[in-house]
Amino acid sequence: MAKQERAIRTRRAILEAAGAVFDEHGYTSTTIAMVLERAEVTKGALYFHFASKESLAQAVLNEQVPFGAVPPQPCKLQEIVDMTFVVGQRLLSNALLRGSVRLAVDQETPSGVDHGEPFRQWAQRLTELLELARERGELLPTVKPRETVELLVGSFTGIQLMSRALTDRTDLGERLSVMWAHILPSIAVPGLLPGLDARADRGERVLASQERAAS
Amino acid sequence: MAKQERAIRTRRAILEAAGAVFDEHGYTSTTIAMVLERAEVTKGALYFHFASKESLAQAVLNEQVPFGAVPPQPCKLQEIVDMTFVVGQRLLSNALLRGSVRLAVDQETPSGVDHGEPFRQWAQRLTELLELARERGELLPTVKPRETVELLVGSFTGIQLMSRALTDRTDLGERLSVMWAHILPSIAVPGLLPGLDARADRGERVLASQERAAS
Repeated sequence: MAKQERAIRTRRAILEAAGAVFDEHGYTSTTIAMVLERAEVTKGALYFHFASKESLAQAVLNEQVPFGAVPPQPCKLQEIVDMTFVVGQRLLSNALLRGSVRLAVDQETPSGVDHGEPFRQWAQRLTELLELARERGELLPTVKPRETVELLVGSFTGIQLMSRALTDRTDLGERLSVMWAHILPSIAVPGLLPGLDARADRGERVLASQERAAS
Repeated sequence: MAKQERAIRTRRAILEAAGAVFDEHGYTSTTIAMVLERAEVTKGALYFHFASKESLAQAVLNEQVPFGAVPPQPCKLQEIVDMTFVVGQRLLSNALLRGSVRLAVDQETPSGVDHGEPFRQWAQRLTELLELARERGELLPTVKPRETVELLVGSFTGIQLMSRALTDRTDLGERLSVMWAHILPSIAVPGLLPGLDARADRGERVLASQERAAS
């Protein structure tokens, strides 16, 4: 394995371990030693990639948006719907994503760490997609993409949080389906509505088709 | 002052101090000593009302819903809209409410404390109001009150959280206004929409008229 490739793998292993530890213990109670033990790397390796607990937390926070990767769709609104369901589904199985969400949501994350960053990154990614949807004539003329996007990011955040508090996120798909049923009629042109798929198991189905395509 | 009245005041002073300390430090870092110092009460007085830090946190959590008190409206949907804006407005000035919201939202709140409880209490209160709205013919026939309510509670939670992370909640009124602009057309009969007031400063105005009525 080339030196650079090894470094990338080590960095990823540290991030995944840190995500899991932040998810379980929160920012304050997490120590570098706990991350070292989980990642099975040396202190030197960790400090080569991350100068401090703050910079490790920031890196974990910045890893959120790639988890929203979904296959492109002819309808861009469907792609946005898919992102929410896929992130919801991945929250069930991916500890790095869960740790990143916890850092963004918990008030304890210290002021040296910018926990507004993932909100801004999601908003930017979704605004690009919604602008595309507009160009393709998918949106009602009343939609202001930036406002709609900020609503989606905020609502998703609270819905996953409430789902975690009440059912350990097992009903998240159903809650997202209810969110879209309420919001889509205010943003999509009416002719699109019957064809948009926002059923509770959408995330599972998108991920399964992605795996089939990759194998 | 009668003995019972004094006890009620002391209990309230402790709750308000605890809310402020939980808001600033979170559950784990808060100590009973910090609450005693803030409340200026004796250890004996505190333990007379609350057996432990857990029971104090639970009491702070259970104080949330009374902050949604608003003047009755002929249109029950307007009353629901008002509750969200009034809670948003009170979050700016009331430390007990802020502490209660932090405990509900932070993942660190320990499993001995039921931080799902305020979500359930809000859902129950709002479901009652939405059922009333249904009886009065305010709702589209497609609305399932329980689903809509769970969406509102989840969305509100995430929107206030995002507003806190990005602007220390100064833009919360605007964000709530955007939320209602997207959701009301999916729940209200069309004839009601022009008359519903969900402008960003609705919370301020409702509270100001309440104060005028009380003076």
